[in-house]
Amino acid sequence: MEDKAQIQEAIKVQGEVVRKLKSEKASKEQIDEEVAKLLELKARLGGDDGKHQFVLKTAKGTRDYNPKQMAIREKVFNTIISCFKRHGAETIDTPVFELKETLTGKYGEDSKLIYDLKDQGGELLSLRYDLTVPFARYLAMNKITNIKRYHIAKVYRRDNPAMTRGRYREFYQCDFDIAGQYDAMIPDAECLKIVHEILSELDLGDFRIKVNDRRILDGMFAVCGVPDDKFRTICSTVDKLDKMPWEDVKKEMVNEKGLSEEAADQIGEYVSMQGGMDLAERLLQDHKMSQSKQACAGLSDIKLLFSFLQLFQVTDKVVFDLSLARGLDYYTGIIYEAVLTQAGVAAVSNEAQNGANAEESVSVGSVAGGGRYDGLVGMFDPKGRKVPCVGVSIGIERIFSIMEQKAEASAEKVRTTEVQVMVASAQKNLLEERLRLVTELWNAGIKAEVMYKKNPKLLSQLQHCEESGIPLVAILGEQELKDGVVKLRVVATREEIDIARTDLTSEIRRRTSEA
Amino acid sequence: MEDKAQIQEAIKVQGEVVRKLKSEKASKEQIDEEVAKLLELKARLGGDDGKHQFVLKTAKGTRDYNPKQMAIREKVFNTIISCFKRHGAETIDTPVFELKETLTGKYGEDSKLIYDLKDQGGELLSLRYDLTVPFARYLAMNKITNIKRYHIAKVYRRDNPAMTRGRYREFYQCDFDIAGQYDAMIPDAECLKIVHEILSELDLGDFRIKVNDRRILDGMFAVCGVPDDKFRTICSTVDKLDKMPWEDVKKEMVNEKGLSEEAADQIGEYVSMQGGMDLAERLLQDHKMSQSKQACAGLSDIKLLFSFLQLFQVTDKVVFDLSLARGLDYYTGIIYEAVLTQAGVAAVSNEAQNGANAEESVSVGSVAGGGRYDGLVGMFDPKGRKVPCVGVSIGIERIFSIMEQKAEASAEKVRTTEVQVMVASAQKNLLEERLRLVTELWNAGIKAEVMYKKNPKLLSQLQHCEESGIPLVAILGEQELKDGVVKLRVVATREEIDIARTDLTSEIRRRTSEA
Repeated sequence: MEDKAQIQEAIKVQGEVVRKLKSEKASKEQIDEEVAKLLELKARLGGDDGKHQFVLKTAKGTRDYNPKQMAIREKVFNTIISCFKRHGAETIDTPVFELKETLTGKYGEDSKLIYDLKDQGGELLSLRYDLTVPFARYLAMNKITNIKRYHIAKVYRRDNPAMTRGRYREFYQCDFDIAGQYDAMIPDAECLKIVHEILSELDLGDFRIKVNDRRILDGMFAVCGVPDDKFRTICSTVDKLDKMPWEDVKKEMVNEKGLSEEAADQIGEYVSMQGGMDLAERLLQDHKMSQSKQACAGLSDIKLLFSFLQLFQVTDKVVFDLSLARGLDYYTGIIYEAVLTQAGVAAVSNEAQNGANAEESVSVGSVAGGGRYDGLVGMFDPKGRKVPCVGVSIGIERIFSIMEQKAEASAEKVRTTEVQVMVASAQKNLLEERLRLVTELWNAGIKAEVMYKKNPKLLSQLQHCEESGIPLVAILGEQELKDGVVKLRVVATREEIDIARTDLTSEIRRRTSEA
Repeated sequence: MEDKAQIQEAIKVQGEVVRKLKSEKASKEQIDEEVAKLLELKARLGGDDGKHQFVLKTAKGTRDYNPKQMAIREKVFNTIISCFKRHGAETIDTPVFELKETLTGKYGEDSKLIYDLKDQGGELLSLRYDLTVPFARYLAMNKITNIKRYHIAKVYRRDNPAMTRGRYREFYQCDFDIAGQYDAMIPDAECLKIVHEILSELDLGDFRIKVNDRRILDGMFAVCGVPDDKFRTICSTVDKLDKMPWEDVKKEMVNEKGLSEEAADQIGEYVSMQGGMDLAERLLQDHKMSQSKQACAGLSDIKLLFSFLQLFQVTDKVVFDLSLARGLDYYTGIIYEAVLTQAGVAAVSNEAQNGANAEESVSVGSVAGGGRYDGLVGMFDPKGRKVPCVGVSIGIERIFSIMEQKAEASAEKVRTTEVQVMVASAQKNLLEERLRLVTELWNAGIKAEVMYKKNPKLLSQLQHCEESGIPLVAILGEQELKDGVVKLRVVATREEIDIARTDLTSEIRRRTSEA
């Protein structure tokens, strides 16, 4: 124990140091450092003096997950991971931060959203912005030329997110990627099959998977007369079509990006097109589109893709949509995005609450996206060796939000533990006997709890079971101990039966495997 | 696609900008920013120019986990989480960074090891240093007064770690804590029971759990004549006893910390004591120790603890050890640490390789630790309301290292996927049929793979099964398709049988559930 008076004296001195630095307009860093020392001293004091300075909150754009949210998260992860494993994926993990230069030049304009670590000496580091760039770095670094892997981890973006719509500065990504030189469109089709399986199993309502190809977009821009150096910026304007009506998108192209009205109108015609394999066939005959070799390569691949999707039995949800652009720079071929078409009652009401406008609520639906990126790994390889990749990222945070809202709306209670039985007693002085019994149960692999009180009331023990959904109570009393039995109570029905102590674990197992 | 010449021109211009700033001695930040733009341009060029700048490595003190390591990690986590769930724990998650001030004043001297984020405007943030402080912040913020929770997540320390011994700057912590006002030593004993269960189940070899109490240490210091203001520093010297012989510890106390030789010798006598409940009883009678009220309170609790540990059947591994001090400031009562007593053949040989000395290799053994911290939550509460807590942290990285080395040494191959069957073909032009069959299997919940080639060789398909441990191959050929059967091949025995297509999934399930 430290001497209080001594610390108080130190606080006084340190307070002077801080005041002096401030009056001298010392550097922010120097002042911060001395303030930190002061706060530390105050904290050590443990008294009220040390209390006020704490702002009790999580960092902006982040949140804690409470046990209920974690139970939902676990369920969603299990569904997704099962699907990834069913398709033979391995998993890897990478550090939460990378060398800053590893991320440089991969995200275009969004680079400003990267979190940097403070330079505390040593390497310059940044928090990962997605899982794709670390994956590419991993492949190049380990000279891996083919792998099918999933990676579920948090990524970081200094955005101004709408947290009510499940958007945060710290959020999970849930990626599945296939790297390797393979025959066209087979891995690409499997990615879409996976999205179809996951969204179906999670039971989020109807959905659609939009598909397009970067080569079709580029070819379309070329034949519509977009200058080469405007492809990228026009592409990112097209990307806004899910949030803005065509009229506004056109205005941006013409007024802000300096595109000719005529070119914009031609683009407008194409990006309104949606269909399946038939549309790809039609566009291959289109007198303008067919002039672009790139577009034709993309369109042929879309045809091939749909033939595989038919075999995979998922064409009911997939649509070839020329308005799909997707933001990221590194895509080189097929791109896709899954949207929920019934945005979900809960999600919509939440939108309304927060006064979001109608256009915004449309984009609530996007729950998965991805595409082919054949150049990214080569950017890391010293010799520029390419490893073709295709992958999909599940928009897990949005799915959490929807599942949480569904759970709120449902009458069924979310259990946050898996406890099968509570060891209880109605009488006093049976702590030792309770601990002895719960040990027997734990050692037999039964999930069991006991109250950490010498003499808890039976009522409070039963209440705990009700609250946390524990289905059984094993009740001990003098009589039961004498008879070598335990009174097993079913919480839901209040039924009670005496069970021989030797049969207890098998009886608990029998009763809880039924449930 | 961008025009190469245009980018090259932009690179030239940007290169000038950087040179100019450097010659003008502009601020590091400004230069960094422009260099980043330059690198981005080079990266966009995609040519060799953009390649050299990438240093292909992970940040110092961090590592990737490859699929094999992940498979081991998953197995270890499953064992630990099952144990936590068996004891009725919920789980929570908190953000990877906290407001800087949340961490201030909690870690004493180690605060210098905290990673800060760069000030990019907005709040000052730091990466979490452990899971205990965020847990306390969570409890105070949500006014939670009792909870039993586990939390498995990565934490960050700017240390100079010995990575060969499983120590990193980014590493997992695996915490179980019980918060709440309960009767003495019951939750404390359950924490030790949990350590006992986990270490037994992981089968890491023999282990011992050392137990002590901060109040006993403080009382001991008092009765040995250590001045009040030296308790903390002497305590951290005692903490080095697992790495240094007593002679060196004593030297540090006397020469560096200015303790009298007599006091040091008295401490030396006590810290050599080890035992069980009997030792606690003896010390309660000790003429010096019994003068300290604090020590007596601690000793009585040790007695009580051992009585519960007897009921939990774990006293075989627990030892009351007066030399156990533990580093962290926030402990207020019982403290404990589990060590592996057969440091493990692999671990030891690894030590030798890296020229670590014998004393260091002793501490390789520490794989779990924890204690009671009744004051920490109160530091966050605006009104200083206390929530008593006790918890344990499993040293999971060290356990991973040991398990990895065991796997290396073992003849058994670690599988990184769970694929049950490979859909293959010996003939050409059967891609569609293979995709149709694998779809049937996926839709039936079978874990299945198919090669992403139009016409793969049978040998390469079988080789893939051998390499990744896939037990079955479903082989399709013209004849099988005609007959409505599939040839099922058992990889291990090369046995082949024709199975009716309608029976295939049940046959696969039967054969792989046996395995």
